[in-house]
Amino acid sequence: MFDPASLCFDDKGLIPCIAQEEGTGAVLMMAWMNEAAVRKTLETRRVTYWSRSRAAFWVKGETSGHVQELVDFRVDCDRDCLLVIVRQTGPACHTNRKSCFYTAVREGAEVELARPVEG
Amino acid sequence: MFDPASLCFDDKGLIPCIAQEEGTGAVLMMAWMNEAAVRKTLETRRVTYWSRSRAAFWVKGETSGHVQELVDFRVDCDRDCLLVIVRQTGPACHTNRKSCFYTAVREGAEVELARPVEG
Repeated sequence: MFDPASLCFDDKGLIPCIAQEEGTGAVLMMAWMNEAAVRKTLETRRVTYWSRSRAAFWVKGETSGHVQELVDFRVDCDRDCLLVIVRQTGPACHTNRKSCFYTAVREGAEVELARPVEG
Repeated sequence: MFDPASLCFDDKGLIPCIAQEEGTGAVLMMAWMNEAAVRKTLETRRVTYWSRSRAAFWVKGETSGHVQELVDFRVDCDRDCLLVIVRQTGPACHTNRKSCFYTAVREGAEVELARPVEG
């Protein structure tokens, strides 16, 4: 049995969670979960983070519609980081880009790899 | 120009960094960098983390030989998470598995997805 309490949360009760898109393998974003968000994610299959700024559950896509359906839930060797494989509706990034990691550093300069999706 | 000081480090001066394998897209591990580790990684093209337990630079693979050659360096929209695309020599995980995320949670149980590599 998997017990969410067996994860290693930091001194704020949080654990980082990486979201990766099923199929493409694209790394979409990283956000945080607390123990309750882990439970909600596993129960609802709708990826739910903990918003540090709002100090509230953040059901990804609840307002934007850009939801993440949980495909697989992974724990790392140290139990202090999570990886969720997701079916992403729309862009994952709040800038309307597919991934939050659209800025590369190349030869000392920042390069924008993707533009916001239209609409 | 990219200035590592422009990143958002946490209250311990650290930023999480996800390592993804070039080509396969496999998420290998997540570890932490401080500003100096970011600079070293970009200068040496050898991925260098900050070991929180040892409070020292952690040039990945320095003792194991399982080095990570930097292919691309990415910053997320909030500038508080990094993604490095790497050419990984040998397994990335200290358990001798390719990825640290070898445990899945399925129907409430933990499932081991990969065995340690021989040798």
